[in-house]
Amino acid sequence: MIMKNMQQTKNYRFVLQYDGTRYDGWQKQGNTDNTIQGKLEQVLTRMVDGMSVEVHGAGRTDAGVHAVGQVANAHLRTNLSESEMLSYMNRYLPEDIMVTEVKKVTDRFHSRLNASGKIYTYGLDMAPKSPVFQRKYIYTLGETLNLEAMRQAAGHLTGTHDFKSFCSNKHFKKSTVRTIDRVQILSHGSQLEIRVQGDGFLYNMVRILVGTLIEVGQGRRAPDDIPAILAAKDRERAGFTAPAKGLFLTEVLY
Amino acid sequence: MIMKNMQQTKNYRFVLQYDGTRYDGWQKQGNTDNTIQGKLEQVLTRMVDGMSVEVHGAGRTDAGVHAVGQVANAHLRTNLSESEMLSYMNRYLPEDIMVTEVKKVTDRFHSRLNASGKIYTYGLDMAPKSPVFQRKYIYTLGETLNLEAMRQAAGHLTGTHDFKSFCSNKHFKKSTVRTIDRVQILSHGSQLEIRVQGDGFLYNMVRILVGTLIEVGQGRRAPDDIPAILAAKDRERAGFTAPAKGLFLTEVLY
Repeated sequence: MIMKNMQQTKNYRFVLQYDGTRYDGWQKQGNTDNTIQGKLEQVLTRMVDGMSVEVHGAGRTDAGVHAVGQVANAHLRTNLSESEMLSYMNRYLPEDIMVTEVKKVTDRFHSRLNASGKIYTYGLDMAPKSPVFQRKYIYTLGETLNLEAMRQAAGHLTGTHDFKSFCSNKHFKKSTVRTIDRVQILSHGSQLEIRVQGDGFLYNMVRILVGTLIEVGQGRRAPDDIPAILAAKDRERAGFTAPAKGLFLTEVLY
Repeated sequence: MIMKNMQQTKNYRFVLQYDGTRYDGWQKQGNTDNTIQGKLEQVLTRMVDGMSVEVHGAGRTDAGVHAVGQVANAHLRTNLSESEMLSYMNRYLPEDIMVTEVKKVTDRFHSRLNASGKIYTYGLDMAPKSPVFQRKYIYTLGETLNLEAMRQAAGHLTGTHDFKSFCSNKHFKKSTVRTIDRVQILSHGSQLEIRVQGDGFLYNMVRILVGTLIEVGQGRRAPDDIPAILAAKDRERAGFTAPAKGLFLTEVLY
């Protein structure tokens, strides 16, 4: 029955949500694999009877970072329908990873290379303690911030800039120029939600942007310091890296 | 300085939220104490320099049950203001217990004895998997329920009845007559929220009510079986005890 193996591969697009708390981030790492990509590949490999599967994710979220709208794709040989695949994956994935959509797409679709932008959302609480049901998904700062100053600083960050100062990877060889379309700072009581939309993000970039905005909100930096920080192209000049737990990959745009 | 110890005790009312996942319920249990009441008493005892403190809770939530609006009170000798007490308690309580309000009340106020009613909310998901960020606070049933039948059954439960069939404690000596003012079954997509308001609840009563309603929704019982279940005064006749994780003490009424 050689024909069985001649079945064509089809390209599937997945939308995923996950609680990143106990994972070493999105990207597969050698043998000691505790990553979102790794868990997905395990389940899909099982689903296609052991054939090797490679899953491409739109955003390579760091360890501890969450997602509500991660997009991924994989080329698979399967006779299952989209909804059967969704059920299968959710049955075998751990309870902190969930597939919310499965769709067959054109062969050329690549979740990361085709993405035109991404939206990340960072949650923080200015109160000394966060509501208990959000405690793992919000950074508890316990300090009141000057939102007006933060919004001014955010204005300097939007646009196309070299974000080398906002990249943790010192040895990054490719271009560090990115475009940030929008930074919104929304407040709900003591909680802030910082939404950043851009065409792409460098390693730790959103967390360093948020850390720098927090320092502006604390009055430790002036909003007008931002242009000089950008111009320096030096990670030392930007603010701290805000904790992973507050960060969500919210949406991938195509 | 004997006068220092002559300070009057004052009665304080607390509003609390907690994630019950890792606790053995509200009520203090001997020496191996891992209860919400125990944690509160530890922190308050420390706050009043070691004087013994007893905290009265309005609802004795079971192991694993959560609260967003638990009310408690305690008589304390302290010079701290209400807001200082709130800060102190939230600093020393674990991150899964939070005080949202502290208020000095009349000496006679007792959180449980003065309560005129309570609202419990039970969350369940008819989808096979729950959204990952709610997974610890919702019962994942994975089965579509007949809401119309459940609402009919709920109609039979409201009013004043002997709820002995809905009480796990076989040796309960006091009256098992309670009044249920309202049972609401709200749906949001695949999720159901069952809100039960009553003047008081027996041991496991809300969870058995929910379990029985689920069995009605599954078609395993008819809505009109409810009157006979109530009349039997026999725990064996009612449905299963729905898991603790889906249950929240939402509000205490006075």
